[in-house]
Amino acid sequence: MPVKPPIPIEELFVGQTAELTRTVDDATVRAFAEVSGDHNPLHLDEAFARRTPYRGRIAHGALIASYLSALLGNELPGPGAIFVSMDLAFQRPVRIGDTVVSRAEITAIDLKTRMVELSCSCHVGEIEVMAARASVMVRTRKPKASD
Amino acid sequence: MPVKPPIPIEELFVGQTAELTRTVDDATVRAFAEVSGDHNPLHLDEAFARRTPYRGRIAHGALIASYLSALLGNELPGPGAIFVSMDLAFQRPVRIGDTVVSRAEITAIDLKTRMVELSCSCHVGEIEVMAARASVMVRTRKPKASD
Repeated sequence: MPVKPPIPIEELFVGQTAELTRTVDDATVRAFAEVSGDHNPLHLDEAFARRTPYRGRIAHGALIASYLSALLGNELPGPGAIFVSMDLAFQRPVRIGDTVVSRAEITAIDLKTRMVELSCSCHVGEIEVMAARASVMVRTRKPKASD
Repeated sequence: MPVKPPIPIEELFVGQTAELTRTVDDATVRAFAEVSGDHNPLHLDEAFARRTPYRGRIAHGALIASYLSALLGNELPGPGAIFVSMDLAFQRPVRIGDTVVSRAEITAIDLKTRMVELSCSCHVGEIEVMAARASVMVRTRKPKASD
């Protein structure tokens, strides 16, 4: 995947949005279990998960959160952005095969501290499955830039 | 990795703690980039990262958060726990090769709503690199259990 150049904070604006669509497949859930070490059978074991209120396997909440990490890290504010805080609310289960649309919108920019606030949500169809607020620190325009 | 049986909420107590130690290696950071889709060069490209204030590659904050997911999902409250919310503060960078000790402590239990609150932290040596508060929902003891 080609990486975009960093967006300097001067080029960001309140109301700016970005979106990322990912389908959660079995391989992704198993890869996330490996990399995180989270082997909760709610995510991996259909027989176990079927006996829970979810009546079937669901994706790790932290996997869905990592899609926001990708959206913020790749797109808005993009490469070089430094995550300061992220408040996540896991609202509804995401099942294997679900397509998750993650969306971020800039709600505040502080040029002095270089802090950018974003309101984020993840939907499966019409259903909001996760909501989040994120604070990231963004680079300023480089003094040697072409402007 | 063998998965522990779920701990019913009746067996949890305020002050209960669990710990998880993981070393962040290059392979883990690259695997996390793949699974999350977060290809921010701050995490992957040493030449790019050297020109940032961090002066070198750092791990994804969401990777460190996923260790908390593992700690909560595997250990405390353990398998079957359902993540409701997680507030993360990324305090200091974690570098490739750092060993991260993640710790969770139960701070509140509500038997009626089955909600458990945890205070979490991740350290590299003496340095706190991440702090978090998590709310999870836990199963009640099964009526047919052996007790």
